[in-house]
Amino acid sequence: MKFVRYGAEGAEKPGMIDASGQLRDLSGHIADLSGATLDPSRLAEIGEIDASSLPKVDGMPRLGPCVAGTGKFICIGLNYSDHAAETGATVPPEPIIFMKATSAICGPNDNLVIPRGSEKTDWEVELGVVIGKTAKYVSEDEAMDYVAGYCTIHDVSERAFQAEHSGQWTKGKSADTFGPTGPWLVTRDEVADPQNLGMWLTVNGEKMQNGSTRTMVYGVKFLVSYLSRFMSLRPGDIISTGTPPGVGLGMKPQRFLKPGDVVELGVEGLGTQKQTCVADT
Amino acid sequence: MKFVRYGAEGAEKPGMIDASGQLRDLSGHIADLSGATLDPSRLAEIGEIDASSLPKVDGMPRLGPCVAGTGKFICIGLNYSDHAAETGATVPPEPIIFMKATSAICGPNDNLVIPRGSEKTDWEVELGVVIGKTAKYVSEDEAMDYVAGYCTIHDVSERAFQAEHSGQWTKGKSADTFGPTGPWLVTRDEVADPQNLGMWLTVNGEKMQNGSTRTMVYGVKFLVSYLSRFMSLRPGDIISTGTPPGVGLGMKPQRFLKPGDVVELGVEGLGTQKQTCVADT
Repeated sequence: MKFVRYGAEGAEKPGMIDASGQLRDLSGHIADLSGATLDPSRLAEIGEIDASSLPKVDGMPRLGPCVAGTGKFICIGLNYSDHAAETGATVPPEPIIFMKATSAICGPNDNLVIPRGSEKTDWEVELGVVIGKTAKYVSEDEAMDYVAGYCTIHDVSERAFQAEHSGQWTKGKSADTFGPTGPWLVTRDEVADPQNLGMWLTVNGEKMQNGSTRTMVYGVKFLVSYLSRFMSLRPGDIISTGTPPGVGLGMKPQRFLKPGDVVELGVEGLGTQKQTCVADT
Repeated sequence: MKFVRYGAEGAEKPGMIDASGQLRDLSGHIADLSGATLDPSRLAEIGEIDASSLPKVDGMPRLGPCVAGTGKFICIGLNYSDHAAETGATVPPEPIIFMKATSAICGPNDNLVIPRGSEKTDWEVELGVVIGKTAKYVSEDEAMDYVAGYCTIHDVSERAFQAEHSGQWTKGKSADTFGPTGPWLVTRDEVADPQNLGMWLTVNGEKMQNGSTRTMVYGVKFLVSYLSRFMSLRPGDIISTGTPPGVGLGMKPQRFLKPGDVVELGVEGLGTQKQTCVADT
């Protein structure tokens, strides 16, 4: 099932995309896509609702982030061997974990606001994993039981903020609109193999990233299990699993986003995003 | 004014401490200490309520974290020059920012749960700053307008998880119960100078940390302004401003927490915490 949240920022309603691509409203059944509603068993119940009984939503409303109540926006660094190489780093012996601010989360097609003082705003298409129920010390074998589903994530990154202003990457990952999330929360059952999904990103129509989750170093099962040793994962938490090669930082010469640029990206089966870059005035 | 949240975990009610030290219930006036309620002007209005008109709360209920709805738990690393020295680091040219998981937040006197596999769980008393309204690109001069108040924070840290399992400190800062917060949210007007507060921590009654916010490298005004360049600060966000010398990592020989240890800590005027360490079984 493909869940969405639609409507004005901060006032999104839950919805779903039916087999014909029609957006339908779910607010008669659930308050939001958050908390206990994300439990895989609850999502399965909702999936049994006859889609044709749900009100059609007319027009093309704004889509919000496809999940609400995200307490942690956890990212994995250098998780594609080719990407590590292009940034001059080596694959880490254990996953690198960092956090994006949850205030960076926005809708998949909202404007990408380049922060004041930024000269190195960069792109990163990623597979997002949405946690469905609390996971603590879970094994790899049981890890998938705690996953609600998947979504496309744009892990926007300011490279100077990230690396040239004293340690820890959070500083370059957390500006408002640096975390477009969605369009859809695709339930686990609809993704046959999360380690075999194509992913791509273009800037002004030019292909920059063209990879696959096949080349991910630490896969989804491992990451859920690994993270759950260090912190409890809660419903609505997002794990953004790293980016394949093709970021601006790795180009010669380097290339970064500027106002007016249009970024489009997607992960196979999870829908696409499109952002227009604007200056923060 | 001293605000508290009291009651069972996840079901805390808002309250306040009156001039005689009596806990009184505020749930007839506010739903919780979160979001728009934390706006300094709203807190001032609540402060005008005649305390004697509020219901007394009998007994000694559990105290929860003194603020709810925390979207970001932002920490400043190596922000006391003496502490940097004891860990073998130098004072950074700009503040080091890292995130603790918000799921680490707990009440000030809850058990401190040592995670499975931990051998280096360490203590850090810190001054916490609670954001009262959204701050973005604010100057140092206006920074304090965005501060709701202050609280004591215990930035519990697992040093092996932090430094021996590949980069980024989040991994060692985020276990459940690693963020005792409170007991009180003390409003800004009650803290004459946040850069002149004594702070201390004992383990089993032995003084380990004994410092003052006077020796903080980057002060509260600067931090609020600085952080607001990289991310918007939202009501309920917490900035934990770093720890003075005396952590276990810096001792010779090093010393870490084990089940049965009792940690007590406090910041002048902001109340004290007491945690018993237990194993995560």
